[in-house]
Amino acid sequence: MKPFLLAMLIALAATHSRAELTASDLAHADKLRAAGLASPLAYELVTSLTDIGPRMAGTAADERAVAWGVERLKRLGFSNVRAEPFTMTAWRRGPGSAQVTAPNPQPLAMAALGNSVSTPAEGIEAEIAYYPDFEALKADTGDRARGRIVFIDQKTQRQRFGATYGNAVRARTQGASEAAKRGALAVVIRSISTDHDRFPHTGSVNYDKAAPKIPAVAVSIPDADLVARLAAAGPVRLRVAVATETDVPVTSHNVIGEVPGSDLAQEIVLIGGHLDSWDLGTGAIDDGAGVAITVAAAKVILDAGIKPRRTIRVVMFGNEENGLDGSRSYGARYKDVAHQLVGESDFGAGRPWRVSSRVLPGALPVVAQIAKALAPLDIAAGDNAADTGPDANYLKTRYRWPVVHPDQDGHDYFDYHHTANDTLDKIDPATLRPNIAAWAVIAWLAAQSDVAFGPLAEATK
Amino acid sequence: MKPFLLAMLIALAATHSRAELTASDLAHADKLRAAGLASPLAYELVTSLTDIGPRMAGTAADERAVAWGVERLKRLGFSNVRAEPFTMTAWRRGPGSAQVTAPNPQPLAMAALGNSVSTPAEGIEAEIAYYPDFEALKADTGDRARGRIVFIDQKTQRQRFGATYGNAVRARTQGASEAAKRGALAVVIRSISTDHDRFPHTGSVNYDKAAPKIPAVAVSIPDADLVARLAAAGPVRLRVAVATETDVPVTSHNVIGEVPGSDLAQEIVLIGGHLDSWDLGTGAIDDGAGVAITVAAAKVILDAGIKPRRTIRVVMFGNEENGLDGSRSYGARYKDVAHQLVGESDFGAGRPWRVSSRVLPGALPVVAQIAKALAPLDIAAGDNAADTGPDANYLKTRYRWPVVHPDQDGHDYFDYHHTANDTLDKIDPATLRPNIAAWAVIAWLAAQSDVAFGPLAEATK
Repeated sequence: MKPFLLAMLIALAATHSRAELTASDLAHADKLRAAGLASPLAYELVTSLTDIGPRMAGTAADERAVAWGVERLKRLGFSNVRAEPFTMTAWRRGPGSAQVTAPNPQPLAMAALGNSVSTPAEGIEAEIAYYPDFEALKADTGDRARGRIVFIDQKTQRQRFGATYGNAVRARTQGASEAAKRGALAVVIRSISTDHDRFPHTGSVNYDKAAPKIPAVAVSIPDADLVARLAAAGPVRLRVAVATETDVPVTSHNVIGEVPGSDLAQEIVLIGGHLDSWDLGTGAIDDGAGVAITVAAAKVILDAGIKPRRTIRVVMFGNEENGLDGSRSYGARYKDVAHQLVGESDFGAGRPWRVSSRVLPGALPVVAQIAKALAPLDIAAGDNAADTGPDANYLKTRYRWPVVHPDQDGHDYFDYHHTANDTLDKIDPATLRPNIAAWAVIAWLAAQSDVAFGPLAEATK
Repeated sequence: MKPFLLAMLIALAATHSRAELTASDLAHADKLRAAGLASPLAYELVTSLTDIGPRMAGTAADERAVAWGVERLKRLGFSNVRAEPFTMTAWRRGPGSAQVTAPNPQPLAMAALGNSVSTPAEGIEAEIAYYPDFEALKADTGDRARGRIVFIDQKTQRQRFGATYGNAVRARTQGASEAAKRGALAVVIRSISTDHDRFPHTGSVNYDKAAPKIPAVAVSIPDADLVARLAAAGPVRLRVAVATETDVPVTSHNVIGEVPGSDLAQEIVLIGGHLDSWDLGTGAIDDGAGVAITVAAAKVILDAGIKPRRTIRVVMFGNEENGLDGSRSYGARYKDVAHQLVGESDFGAGRPWRVSSRVLPGALPVVAQIAKALAPLDIAAGDNAADTGPDANYLKTRYRWPVVHPDQDGHDYFDYHHTANDTLDKIDPATLRPNIAAWAVIAWLAAQSDVAFGPLAEATK
């Protein structure tokens, strides 16, 4: 955007100051913040949700989770509670194994990556072609990978905000096809993760139509370190065997409940998380926490007894993990309904430390007021270039719906993400509470404003 | 012991002061301590040993480890290097699984316990009888366990010294037979561990001949927490399936090398660790570290160029983990050779913080001099009631051979012990070095003394 345009928009925003939040809106926000900090509800919810077990979209456990969501939202007193079905094709994990076959034969802690095709039943056994990272594979114009198992030793950096994940994760999403283009038989990656525990981290592969589909597997960090040490000393052979099912037709659901609005009830302030999880763990940080936090936040608003102007809608999205079918279905269904906010909590249960947005410039004064109301939670004012959860991000990008959300401390998020170790005990009940408080304040104040947060202009997408 | 006897013994010890260590012995100990702190050898050794992979006694990997041990000891310049065979019967793990079948069907992170018999191929499915700990099971005189799967939710306390492990581990060693005596079909225990990661911890079961042998399984702490929550709410059903082999006849080896002594060469100062590991991890803290530390300590003595008076013998024991066949074989072979010390490093790679002993009272002044030489390592003087590694403990108990050793900080030892997560990355090279230094000082000074450290009197066993 050109500077004079930005100046114009800021000036324009200033003229809308009549639409800023009222003193009583802000006073009520203070009450909600305090109530959020006192709420045990999110921990109760995430406990009962994770006790259901792993819940890949379209499985029996997913059905139990959908029923749980509907039952809980009704019991908590939300309005218009419903489960909205969508159809999709699912991927299913079968048995898998990986071994070093030479030198020093030994098993590796492995998991097939989501969407991976199967190997032959006897597996694929070959010498590896070692690449220190995804860029090294991309840069390889030679013939080194042909007939081999490509091993990508991509490191993931520990960060509070997870910003370098986007770079590292290409080894997982694109590694298989880049290896296949170079004639590889299979790809094995160092897990996209920051831990040093013997857990492989799963997650989706995006096969490129221009390349053959080859099996794709992650090994844990200690196993990747082992392979790297052996590879530094001489040739290494691996065997990989995975059995998977692809294109399984299933039905799953988004679960929805509302705090109905008053004079602006037709405008939606959406907050939520995703109900599904990968199959290895019980989806505590990813994303039982987000579901629990946002339901608890809406419940705080509901219990405080003042009807919001806009409708606050809580959404538990289906199948975030492997296709975003829930948010796609949601968008197609509600594309003509004005959404003044889409907020997704999908970065674990860590403490919120900043509030970020993607809103029209005219809404920035309201965002500034929201930030001020969050300051007692030790939450800093961020910028207007928020990254958000994948469902909200899809809706933001596809429908230009605006975003306001708290950024969470995720320094340990990629220790547990997409592993068997994503279980309830990884959640600190004490850090759930400021998240409840923050989402309650954000949703409430966004619902009380009559300023247009969106639809976003192309330039602010 | 009666007080006047103790006083007499101390007086007697004082008359032996001519046998205390010389100034040049102590000066050389200072050099060894410094050399130990500078030695990278233990980390190199534990890296190459763990890279061999899991090495249960009698497996192909165990054979590779034995060959590695012989090759390394020879290359490092030790004398009389040999692998001494022994025969034994081994237990082998096959496939296993455990699930909650009601409510909320889901898989559990499990491992069969060592020596567990198999279930039928279809597994055993039953309601659980929940016991909060082993004592609660022992105290049950009723019929609650009959026809059920006994679940023992025994907690293990985090401690620097691991002293409460001995109490907790009875749930693993004796739980199966106590459950079987009460008519149970199988036993499932909360892992004997201090972590909250989704790793089951294996380890031996000791079946009591007076009870039927029933299958025995451990689940991880998060899984045990889940079962406990479900059990608090209502009946819980589990399915357990394990396939194992028992009584497999195999041969394994102790690996031995020496720094030959001079005028007291016929007396042995033994230091070592155990070469075998459980099958799940690569045996880094249990006990690659102990092997590496003690070999590196002996190498420091060797390289310092002064021949010890007594012979310093480094032993890598076979099959510590499931039967102590290595130390039994060693004892039977060398029972008539005077051992003035049996020291085993088998509590991980944590920092040494205290020196403890089990020696004749007459040797206590020498132990005090050893403690003084260890003080610069921030190692405190301990008592004469040392616990030691299982191999050394067997030899101490069976042959009354004396013990001096550094106690290590093991606050995280039971996070990794007997899991797939016992891998090289759990070892901090920086804390290996004071262990090398401590063992070098202990072995050297014990070898320079001509005081009898043992055989222990009955009263000091």
